[in-house]
Amino acid sequence: MLFGALEAGGTKMVCAIGNEKGEILERVSIPTETPEVTLPKLLAYFEGKGILALGIGCFGPIDLNESSDTYGYITTTPKLPWVNCDICGYFREHLQIPVGFDTDVNGSLLGEATWGCLQDVKNAMYITIGTGIGAGVMTEGKLLHGMLHPECGHMLMPVRSDDTYGGKCPYHGTCLEGLAAGPAIEARWGQKAETLYDRPEVWELEAHYLAVAVVNFIMTLSPQKIILGGGVMHKDGLMPMVRQKVKEQMAGYIRTKELEDLDSYLVLPSLDDNQGILGALKLGMDRYEKEKTVC
Amino acid sequence: MLFGALEAGGTKMVCAIGNEKGEILERVSIPTETPEVTLPKLLAYFEGKGILALGIGCFGPIDLNESSDTYGYITTTPKLPWVNCDICGYFREHLQIPVGFDTDVNGSLLGEATWGCLQDVKNAMYITIGTGIGAGVMTEGKLLHGMLHPECGHMLMPVRSDDTYGGKCPYHGTCLEGLAAGPAIEARWGQKAETLYDRPEVWELEAHYLAVAVVNFIMTLSPQKIILGGGVMHKDGLMPMVRQKVKEQMAGYIRTKELEDLDSYLVLPSLDDNQGILGALKLGMDRYEKEKTVC
Repeated sequence: MLFGALEAGGTKMVCAIGNEKGEILERVSIPTETPEVTLPKLLAYFEGKGILALGIGCFGPIDLNESSDTYGYITTTPKLPWVNCDICGYFREHLQIPVGFDTDVNGSLLGEATWGCLQDVKNAMYITIGTGIGAGVMTEGKLLHGMLHPECGHMLMPVRSDDTYGGKCPYHGTCLEGLAAGPAIEARWGQKAETLYDRPEVWELEAHYLAVAVVNFIMTLSPQKIILGGGVMHKDGLMPMVRQKVKEQMAGYIRTKELEDLDSYLVLPSLDDNQGILGALKLGMDRYEKEKTVC
Repeated sequence: MLFGALEAGGTKMVCAIGNEKGEILERVSIPTETPEVTLPKLLAYFEGKGILALGIGCFGPIDLNESSDTYGYITTTPKLPWVNCDICGYFREHLQIPVGFDTDVNGSLLGEATWGCLQDVKNAMYITIGTGIGAGVMTEGKLLHGMLHPECGHMLMPVRSDDTYGGKCPYHGTCLEGLAAGPAIEARWGQKAETLYDRPEVWELEAHYLAVAVVNFIMTLSPQKIILGGGVMHKDGLMPMVRQKVKEQMAGYIRTKELEDLDSYLVLPSLDDNQGILGALKLGMDRYEKEKTVC
């Protein structure tokens, strides 16, 4: 059984064909331009491949409410050519197969839940810290959508007293993304994050903010495991520092066996950066099963 | 069909008998002393009433993990005589009926979801602001437990620059509960909250902190509706101020029909302070159905 997978990002579109075992058989990467230019290229890739369904993990915000007129659309994204793009409908119409659709971060979470390190938990988060900060959330075994979908990067944050940077987010200033995403690091310190690896003060502060966010997610969602992914987490030694600061900031308030073993609780992704495309594959598989059952 | 309901609080225990329509037929209130003193009184109330099951909405933290050895226990509560009290097991053993068990705030949420203003949504929060701050959470139609259960009152918060109060929480200082629960208001302003109704600056600051918290819950959980209950919300005019500040702090980042109508999105409880006992009743009903199905 073959399924298509599309990891739709703001700079590139990763397309793949895989099977129900989570084996990726082939893949390509196509630059993200406008929908008029890019969508036909994606379609051309998937056509004639014999796939039973397509899954899309997509940058957002997107409309996941199946009773909405704009279900399957990219909605109010800052990537302007993609505003109100019916990406899900485009493939459904042209390929005439079921199309699964969710956020890119829910996709990554689903990949890890199906074939990675989240297989034994029903409540988890996948947080990505890169050019933005976003999170996929699973509660009681289901991907969380809610009213829209979580926008965890925009949590309002306490600014540490020694941090004079005013924050990068055009909406909220010092929200999590405004304080701790890659562009915020660059704006605060005057250089790209990956050129600052030899400056411990940069990463001590970064670890502090990520730890505050993790504490707040624990208080609000009570996940059984949390993954921190994305480019910023490539910095060696950052994760152990985040763990140490989570422990300090929790201050022993919640006592569970999970929190006693933070090395297993707060982890890096386990699927070699394939979590996103594998999650998209699973979105396609799940949609196929769902529509088969309905028929 | 008759069911028992127990709303277990730190100062009093409300016991009631109701039916499957959500009608409370009788109730009593019993002061909370030690388990040795109080539990037999509760048992005496429920015995011989012909109830099919009992539901308990309980102060916490509690153990909700059914595969745990201490499922149904009150665990690390600051109310010391109740630490490690097997409250659920006590009634199960003595009454020999199914016993449903959840947090008091999940109970209140369930009451509103069954007979109140949350009947048409699957993602919601019930936040209580009183001597502490806690929240019940429903995601995709299920009460959220996760690793433990949400402890939303302990979210770490940005302190407003004009607020010099250091926070009341012994664990986290300026977490939400440390800044905005009743005891924090009293400690900051030197008088009990209910004697400060004529001081607008008290409530402007309170509304600010509650709004920051609501924004963060929207970003993290994406609820379709949020209830703010508890004693602090009895202050006239507080809720409209919270709504106004939520709107300002969201800064238009998320656009949904729900958020366009904050008067319907962010509301007071709808069940005349019966949401807790009705939720406990429903916990009993649900447990009865569950165990019947298993048999």
